[in-house]
Amino acid sequence: MTMNHPPTHISDLQTPCLLVDIDKVKRNCSRMTQRYKELGVELRPHMKTHKTIEGADLMTNGTRKKIVVSTLAEAEFFASHGYDDIIYGKPVSESQLSRCKKLHEKCTQFHLMFDNEETISALERNPLGNKAWSVFLEVDIGGNRTGVLWDSDRVVELARLATNAKNVDFLGIYTHNPMSYSLTSDKAVRNQAETDTKRILSVCDRIRQAGFQVVTVGLGDTPCCSVSDVTMAKLTEVHPGNYIFYDTQQYRIGSCEFDDIAVRVAARVISHRPETNQIVLDSGFVALSHDGTYCNLPDGVAVFQDHSELKLVNMSQEHGCVSVKSGKIDCTAYPLGSMLFIYPYHACATAANHPVYYVHSGDSVIGVWKPVKGW
Amino acid sequence: MTMNHPPTHISDLQTPCLLVDIDKVKRNCSRMTQRYKELGVELRPHMKTHKTIEGADLMTNGTRKKIVVSTLAEAEFFASHGYDDIIYGKPVSESQLSRCKKLHEKCTQFHLMFDNEETISALERNPLGNKAWSVFLEVDIGGNRTGVLWDSDRVVELARLATNAKNVDFLGIYTHNPMSYSLTSDKAVRNQAETDTKRILSVCDRIRQAGFQVVTVGLGDTPCCSVSDVTMAKLTEVHPGNYIFYDTQQYRIGSCEFDDIAVRVAARVISHRPETNQIVLDSGFVALSHDGTYCNLPDGVAVFQDHSELKLVNMSQEHGCVSVKSGKIDCTAYPLGSMLFIYPYHACATAANHPVYYVHSGDSVIGVWKPVKGW
Repeated sequence: MTMNHPPTHISDLQTPCLLVDIDKVKRNCSRMTQRYKELGVELRPHMKTHKTIEGADLMTNGTRKKIVVSTLAEAEFFASHGYDDIIYGKPVSESQLSRCKKLHEKCTQFHLMFDNEETISALERNPLGNKAWSVFLEVDIGGNRTGVLWDSDRVVELARLATNAKNVDFLGIYTHNPMSYSLTSDKAVRNQAETDTKRILSVCDRIRQAGFQVVTVGLGDTPCCSVSDVTMAKLTEVHPGNYIFYDTQQYRIGSCEFDDIAVRVAARVISHRPETNQIVLDSGFVALSHDGTYCNLPDGVAVFQDHSELKLVNMSQEHGCVSVKSGKIDCTAYPLGSMLFIYPYHACATAANHPVYYVHSGDSVIGVWKPVKGW
Repeated sequence: MTMNHPPTHISDLQTPCLLVDIDKVKRNCSRMTQRYKELGVELRPHMKTHKTIEGADLMTNGTRKKIVVSTLAEAEFFASHGYDDIIYGKPVSESQLSRCKKLHEKCTQFHLMFDNEETISALERNPLGNKAWSVFLEVDIGGNRTGVLWDSDRVVELARLATNAKNVDFLGIYTHNPMSYSLTSDKAVRNQAETDTKRILSVCDRIRQAGFQVVTVGLGDTPCCSVSDVTMAKLTEVHPGNYIFYDTQQYRIGSCEFDDIAVRVAARVISHRPETNQIVLDSGFVALSHDGTYCNLPDGVAVFQDHSELKLVNMSQEHGCVSVKSGKIDCTAYPLGSMLFIYPYHACATAANHPVYYVHSGDSVIGVWKPVKGW
C-alpha cells in the first residue's frame, strides 16, 4: 500500500474513483479463511477481482501461497512478488507456453488447466527440463463454459492421457460453475453447492476406479463458497475470488449482507436537469462498467448509498444520468459538486476499469492499491 | 510509438489484445481533416476513444493543437506532451479547479465547460491570476445529458452571467448530441446534422441579439460529423472522436464503410464444446466490454472477421462463448489455439479496457500505443 501524502478525507478525492473499505475487506477475508479452516478445506483465493498484492496478502492471510489467476499477466505479477503455488485458471494455449516456462522457473509450483487432448500433446512437445508440467483437468459441472462435461467418458480418457503423458503431472480437478450467479436464495445456492460437490466427487471416483490418482479437487464460485454447504468438506480446496469485495449482485444472490460490500464508486453531481427529471454524475461506463445493464433490473444496476430513491438510467463514457424511481426529482437534494456513492453490480467488472483503488478506513483515505492490467 | 523488439507478425501476439490498423487510422484521420478543410470548419478532435499521443498526432495532423478530452488525466497527459488549446469536455466541478489552474500554467489555451450559475461563481471565487478562465456553455440540443436546454431562456442568462463575470472569458457554445447513435440511415443522420446545426445557430442568434459575443460554436458526434451536412459549414468547429477507429455501431449507423473499422480484438480458441454447440475464446468482457449487450442485437454485438456464421453468446471476465447463428457448430473449422478477430461494437468502450494497443500495417506489428487511464 503506497501513499506518498498524508491521509485524506474521502470528500477530498477527485472523482470518479473506486473506494475500497479496508475494514470490510479484512472482515470478508478473515471470515472466508475461518470458514474453510473449520471445514478442513484449503482456501485457494482467486485474484481476478482485485489483482493487487495488498488484496492477495489479505486473502492468503500473508502466506503468499496457493492462488488462482485469470491472466498470465497476473501470474507474472504475483510470482515477481514472491507468490507461489499458482493456478492459471483457464485452458492454456500452446502460444503461452514460453511464458509458462518462465513462471515455472520463478515458482516452486505453477499449474495449468486443460480440457482437451491437444494441450497434453503440446506440453509433451515442450518439455520443461528438470521439472514436469503440473496440470488440472477442468471439468464442466454446469455453466457450459470451458471444461469437459462431468458425466462424459472423456473425463476418464483425459485423466488417463495426462497421467500417462511424458513431462506432465496430473494433479486434479478444477471446476467453476457460474450458474449460482442466477440464483436468488440461500437454499438454491446450498442445493447447487451440494449438487456440484457430488458431481465433482463422482468424477473423482470414476477416475480413481480407472486406476489414476486425483490429488486436488475444487470448486470456486463465490455464492457456493459463501454458503459452504457441509458436503463441501469432502473437497480438497475451494477458489472463490469476488468475496474480497462482494457487490450488489452477490447481495441479491444472498452471498453476503449489504454491509459486507467493500467497494463503491465515488462520483460527483455535475449537472441538474429538472426538465428531464435527472441529475448527471461525472461517472459513466468507464468508471462503473456496463455489466448487468442487459439484465434490465427494475431498479437499475447501481445502488446509491443513502439514496434508495435514485436510479441510474443511462451511461455514456464519462457521464451517468440519474433519475428518481418515481415522481419528480428534487435537484436541491443533490447539490452540484456533492458526492454520491455507488455500490457496483459486479465488483470484478468495475474494478477492472480502475487503474488505482483508494483504500479507506471510515472516511480517511489511508492508501492506494495498484492492480495489474492486461494479459 | 515505442517498440523495443523487431516487428512481429500478428499471429505471434499473445491474446487477447487490441489491434490497431495504422493504415485505416491514417485514412480515417486524413479523410476527416480533408472534409472539414473543404467545409471551412475547424476540426477539434476528441481524444476519448484512443487517449494516445500517437493517435492525437494523426488526428491533429501534427499540429498538437485544438483537442477535446474527456478527463483531466487526458488533459494533463496531452499538455505534458506539448498539446495546447484543450477543452475539458464535461461540466467542471469546483473540486477540480486546482488541477485546472496547473493546466492553465502549462497551456496557452485551456477551456472549461459549464451549464449552470454555480460554476461561474466558483470560477470567480478562484481567480487564475494573470489570466481569465476560458469557458464554453454546454447546450443540450438533444440527448438529455449535460447542458442547458437549447430553447430555454437560461441559455441567454448563462451567456450573460459568464460574459459579465470577473476572471472569466465566455468563448462559445459546445454541444454533443448522442441521439445520432440510435439512427440507422444516412438520411436520418443528415437530418439530425441539419436540425442540430440550426438549433445551435438559433442559440447563437439569441445570445448575440442580447448583446453578447459567441466566438466558437461546435457539435461533435461522429455520425453527424461523418456525413457533414452542408449546413454544418456555418459552424466554427466540430469535435468528433470515434472516427479514428470507427466500429460496428458506427457501421450500422452508416458513419463508415465496414473496411474503415481500424480496431479488432484478437482472441484464441481455447475450448471446443460440441455438446453445447460452442467454442470458447480467451477473450471475455475485460477484453471486449459489455457495451451493446443490452441492445439484444439479433446477431450479437461482436462481428467475427471471415466468420459471419459466428455469434458471441456469452461472456465472463476472461472467457467468450461463441456459437453459430444457426445449425450445429463444426469445431474443426476453428482449431484450438487458432486466432479469431473480433470487430467491437463500441471502440471507445473496448479500447478503454486495454493498457496497450498493438499497431500493425498489414500483418506486421510495427509498434505499441499506450493510452492514458484514469481520471
